[in-house]
Amino acid sequence: MPNGQLDLSQYTVRTDLALEAHEMAAQKHGDKRDIPGVHIDETEEDGITVSWITVEDDQGGEELGKQPGTYLTLEAPGLRSKDSNLQNRVAAKFAEQFERYLKLIHIDDSAKILIIGLGNQRVTADALGPSVVNNLLVTRHLFELMPDQVEDGYRPVSAVSPGVLGTTGIETSEIVFGIVERTHPDVVIAIDSLASRALQRVNTTIQVADTGIHPGSGIGNKRKALTKETIGVPVIAIGVPTVVDAATIAHDTIDFVLANVNREMTQEKPSNPLDPFNRPNVKELQSQDVPEETRSKMMGMIGTLNDEEKRRLIHEVLSPLGQNLIVTPKEVDAFIEDIGNLLANGLNSALHQSVNLKNVEAYTH
Amino acid sequence: MPNGQLDLSQYTVRTDLALEAHEMAAQKHGDKRDIPGVHIDETEEDGITVSWITVEDDQGGEELGKQPGTYLTLEAPGLRSKDSNLQNRVAAKFAEQFERYLKLIHIDDSAKILIIGLGNQRVTADALGPSVVNNLLVTRHLFELMPDQVEDGYRPVSAVSPGVLGTTGIETSEIVFGIVERTHPDVVIAIDSLASRALQRVNTTIQVADTGIHPGSGIGNKRKALTKETIGVPVIAIGVPTVVDAATIAHDTIDFVLANVNREMTQEKPSNPLDPFNRPNVKELQSQDVPEETRSKMMGMIGTLNDEEKRRLIHEVLSPLGQNLIVTPKEVDAFIEDIGNLLANGLNSALHQSVNLKNVEAYTH
Amino acid sequence: MPNGQLDLSQYTVRTDLALEAHEMAAQKHGDKRDIPGVHIDETEEDGITVSWITVEDDQGGEELGKQPGTYLTLEAPGLRSKDSNLQNRVAAKFAEQFERYLKLIHIDDSAKILIIGLGNQRVTADALGPSVVNNLLVTRHLFELMPDQVEDGYRPVSAVSPGVLGTTGIETSEIVFGIVERTHPDVVIAIDSLASRALQRVNTTIQVADTGIHPGSGIGNKRKALTKETIGVPVIAIGVPTVVDAATIAHDTIDFVLANVNREMTQEKPSNPLDPFNRPNVKELQSQDVPEETRSKMMGMIGTLNDEEKRRLIHEVLSPLGQNLIVTPKEVDAFIEDIGNLLANGLNSALHQSVNLKNVEAYTH
Amino acid sequence: MPNGQLDLSQYTVRTDLALEAHEMAAQKHGDKRDIPGVHIDETEEDGITVSWITVEDDQGGEELGKQPGTYLTLEAPGLRSKDSNLQNRVAAKFAEQFERYLKLIHIDDSAKILIIGLGNQRVTADALGPSVVNNLLVTRHLFELMPDQVEDGYRPVSAVSPGVLGTTGIETSEIVFGIVERTHPDVVIAIDSLASRALQRVNTTIQVADTGIHPGSGIGNKRKALTKETIGVPVIAIGVPTVVDAATIAHDTIDFVLANVNREMTQEKPSNPLDPFNRPNVKELQSQDVPEETRSKMMGMIGTLNDEEKRRLIHEVLSPLGQNLIVTPKEVDAFIEDIGNLLANGLNSALHQSVNLKNVEAYTH
Repeated sequence: MPNGQLDLSQYTVRTDLALEAHEMAAQKHGDKRDIPGVHIDETEEDGITVSWITVEDDQGGEELGKQPGTYLTLEAPGLRSKDSNLQNRVAAKFAEQFERYLKLIHIDDSAKILIIGLGNQRVTADALGPSVVNNLLVTRHLFELMPDQVEDGYRPVSAVSPGVLGTTGIETSEIVFGIVERTHPDVVIAIDSLASRALQRVNTTIQVADTGIHPGSGIGNKRKALTKETIGVPVIAIGVPTVVDAATIAHDTIDFVLANVNREMTQEKPSNPLDPFNRPNVKELQSQDVPEETRSKMMGMIGTLNDEEKRRLIHEVLSPLGQNLIVTPKEVDAFIEDIGNLLANGLNSALHQSVNLKNVEAYTH
Repeated sequence: MPNGQLDLSQYTVRTDLALEAHEMAAQKHGDKRDIPGVHIDETEEDGITVSWITVEDDQGGEELGKQPGTYLTLEAPGLRSKDSNLQNRVAAKFAEQFERYLKLIHIDDSAKILIIGLGNQRVTADALGPSVVNNLLVTRHLFELMPDQVEDGYRPVSAVSPGVLGTTGIETSEIVFGIVERTHPDVVIAIDSLASRALQRVNTTIQVADTGIHPGSGIGNKRKALTKETIGVPVIAIGVPTVVDAATIAHDTIDFVLANVNREMTQEKPSNPLDPFNRPNVKELQSQDVPEETRSKMMGMIGTLNDEEKRRLIHEVLSPLGQNLIVTPKEVDAFIEDIGNLLANGLNSALHQSVNLKNVEAYTH
Repeated sequence: MPNGQLDLSQYTVRTDLALEAHEMAAQKHGDKRDIPGVHIDETEEDGITVSWITVEDDQGGEELGKQPGTYLTLEAPGLRSKDSNLQNRVAAKFAEQFERYLKLIHIDDSAKILIIGLGNQRVTADALGPSVVNNLLVTRHLFELMPDQVEDGYRPVSAVSPGVLGTTGIETSEIVFGIVERTHPDVVIAIDSLASRALQRVNTTIQVADTGIHPGSGIGNKRKALTKETIGVPVIAIGVPTVVDAATIAHDTIDFVLANVNREMTQEKPSNPLDPFNRPNVKELQSQDVPEETRSKMMGMIGTLNDEEKRRLIHEVLSPLGQNLIVTPKEVDAFIEDIGNLLANGLNSALHQSVNLKNVEAYTH
Repeated sequence: MPNGQLDLSQYTVRTDLALEAHEMAAQKHGDKRDIPGVHIDETEEDGITVSWITVEDDQGGEELGKQPGTYLTLEAPGLRSKDSNLQNRVAAKFAEQFERYLKLIHIDDSAKILIIGLGNQRVTADALGPSVVNNLLVTRHLFELMPDQVEDGYRPVSAVSPGVLGTTGIETSEIVFGIVERTHPDVVIAIDSLASRALQRVNTTIQVADTGIHPGSGIGNKRKALTKETIGVPVIAIGVPTVVDAATIAHDTIDFVLANVNREMTQEKPSNPLDPFNRPNVKELQSQDVPEETRSKMMGMIGTLNDEEKRRLIHEVLSPLGQNLIVTPKEVDAFIEDIGNLLANGLNSALHQSVNLKNVEAYTH
């Protein structure tokens, strides 16, 4: 790194979230939100932000580093504070939007569903998939064994938690392929824990995508993909970020510090810790456009790096030291239980017409 | 039941254990242990009884109600008292006998193994399979991804807990078939919780058989079989009885009471609770040949029924009342943990030459 | 037992349930339900039977083998079938009756409550107490640390799971005494798993009593009592039978078999397995008054023993054999979770006026 | 923060570890390790560093911000890689050093011990205390109930997990006081999860101290202390850092980046990712003395802050944003299980002469 020559080729910063990819792409385009080949529609209501991002073609795909397809994202920062009213509202919103999503991609009311709970249930931060599967209303066997007795308003749903490579010795995709070949579902829905590149998205964001999933891709692993091409039926991925790496935390902090300095220098009166109305919040800091001069003065050469360069530099220093730990909030146990129930309730309600959010509690643990 | 006409046709008493089937068949043959087409070899050492039963042909199969094949059984009544020394000795004996078993049925040292942990890990009494799988040394992915780096003394082992029909909506056998087709193991080993027809065998007996398994068959369920015929590779079943039904408990108790009365009437001095040497034990009571007259006097008509008739009668009364509960000892949590570790240690040691019972603890939780 | 001389002195059959004690006492009184010093009031509604038994004085206490006091019992046999509607109705009924109970024994709305979850949370069948405590709305610290900010409609509630003697090395009562001395609650509510002497009561019955509790007493252990006399404040015990011993199962089965024979012999047309309306049920069989002659013919000498004698005989035979296992239904995990939630919801709703069964789910896991 | 006027008064950076406090104090003293009133003795063997720090008087106490007393620390960075051989060696070393510790502070072989497992067992990162307690060999009740039958080589040990304020509504110290008053132990040993101010110490460091403990103090909570003064008997605290806050991660990363830049600029040949012998390690980077000029050039004003100022600045920015999350490594479940077993094995072996690390496995789960 003498002479400032960073070798940035080895580490490509990536994100599992189309929303984050969109932010990064918009930044490159001078913060214009019009990115060729990409359509975004965002609404906020009652503490829940719902975004629909359509990557329309290959051009859009290249811009975002994401496959063409439809990405639905729900964000509810309040989820972290264990507000059970908000949890219920998010479950309802998720159910409503997910039903809309299924219609949009032409999955009809009687389509047979196989739900795959990816992840390792013995590692709490990776146990979202199995946790959701444990609370699903499973009906396929009733349709197979006693079709006459299944009431209207249900459809065939099966659900499996196939484990992870390190504990089974088998690629997850091989297990799923085998099950799909044997049971012929019309759609696969895969639930997964994701890695985020923003600390504030951990445990507060849900993404739905129809572009298949790549187990473990968020944290550097390469596994075989689960996509329509590989298994022959559409694959809908539902993911929640549950971990970040230490490099992300450091990067975000540097940005927050710079933005906070800039805010203090540019606003008329200094911030006052006793005045909550004058204290900064995440959104306000993220929207600060910190001038080069301030960056350089406060943070030297590091401050002048762009987002991508900063992330790579930090990653490059921490990783060989074994210090780029993947971390999760201390409260991970309660969070996985809560968001697992939320997703299971939402899915049960969205998939079966006879289930709604009033009676849905009967199906979860 | 007026006129004593019992309709015994509807309920066929069965057992998952060849050892129990052998006892029942021997009883029919007037307690002679020479049953045509069946060979039994039994040794007892240090609190552990090891039995090898060979059902040689169809005649033997019909006598026992068991498929022709080789049945290895280990019994250690002391396991119930949480004696960790005995647990280690049983693990060692199991590893030794299981290695012998594999040789006997021509499974060689390099055969690729898929281990299936049957059962529902959220129902403790049914969680033996998943509990064993959680503690196995899994290596298949290392052979697939970095074959050059695997040291000698290991073989490819994979392991999956496929769940149960009620929570997946898919027959377990379908999932296993799919995995076998995709991963081509040479042998499948399936671990399962069994039902016993004798209270004292619960949690103290391990059976190994090469005749495949029938998930849930022990407690009245009918599911598709896992056998060499259905999946194309040999299937070795390892089972431990973890539950009995209330009818079994009642039946055994009636027999114990009758045998105890007979013992008291026929021995010279009455039993003395203060003299432990004169108190009966299970084996002594089981070997009592209680005369018809005593049976009738003490227990009336019920006392004169044979084993099979008594079981059916009790079953016939309890089942329609919803009182034939399947029960498990109160200490089931600790037991499943202990015997799960014991089997995992035994398997890790039997399957990999580089693992022995001195270093095996490193692989279990 | 030659000459029929049973020594019945060593084993006293007992029950934790006043309802069962009342049945036994009524039997001795020729099935008259008027027992001196005892008042019983029983109502049944919607699958839930609510009984209030008052043991008014020492005479009543001797008749029942229970301390004078008020015993509230809820029975809902349907609880065993995982009917979530019934669970909600039982929770509502329990909350309503428990509020009435508190008023009856003069515990007012502001009384400070300490809830003790007795039992071993690592033994599922013994984990009811800790499971309830985990889901309670605990508020005492808010009253202590920020009394101004606690809204109306709550009262100070604290809750502790003190563990069991075998894992702490300390009598549970010592730990509770220490906490009571330090924190000065007005009432202690202790939650415990009980042993029943009837298989059909396991997991379907809730008892509330104001006579204190004796940890482990139901299954033969002797520990120091938790009563108003020993700790200085009223102790309300809430218990649910979660286990029975093998002797109870055998005894109940013999009775069911005898009653079934009698029913078949005395009804005009024989029972028909294909006709559900003609099949017996538990209540019908329990009310059969089987004549001595039938008992003797069908079950010999054993059949002629009275209830107490039969239980002792069976116990006397099984115990020295190590065969009188304490057992629990195979489904114990789900049951403890369900009834633990039911009791926690009921208590949260009964103890805090601002909590009702519509918003109570927010407090449980 | 215009004009560089940082208000550093509100946040005092602290650490639970005397070793870290010593490092910070040494830094202030120009990295001299001779701090008045403090003695340190450090040895490294086989991947385990053992440090004995004695804070001899109040002067030393003020220098370190730690009470006078004896602090034993074991560090084994390799613990994070699930090396079971290393785990066994650390358990052995811990047992050996802890026995030495007890002798040093005059706790004799027959002293009665009460072990308190602090923390919330439903929050994995906070569950170290309960996890250790679950695996202890508890004997006090045997000495109380059957003193004649306890073999030589054991002493009375009791153990309780009292829960946390948020779930019991009672200060932990109140519960412990009550138990001490009732059971009269000679010593209390309290096990706790700590917060570290260095990411690399999480899950790799064990501290023993005789200065009592302050539940939750590491992460900003204030609770009543457990010390000899408050409960009347010596209190030995055993702690392991299991969490850090985001500010610590960011701070450490900035330091690593600066030190890495400095190393690259000052060493003759540039670092080569393909040459593992030339890659930096944590110790090497920590010992870099980065010149002011480099700090300023690379990191501007932030780079020139001292350690304390940098921590406060970061904390000051993140906390009002709700972004100073307390985090734990993703692998927290396995780690708590492993280090919990390690401590329980070490304690069982150190406290009972008849237990050693060859037979100790019999006592853990």
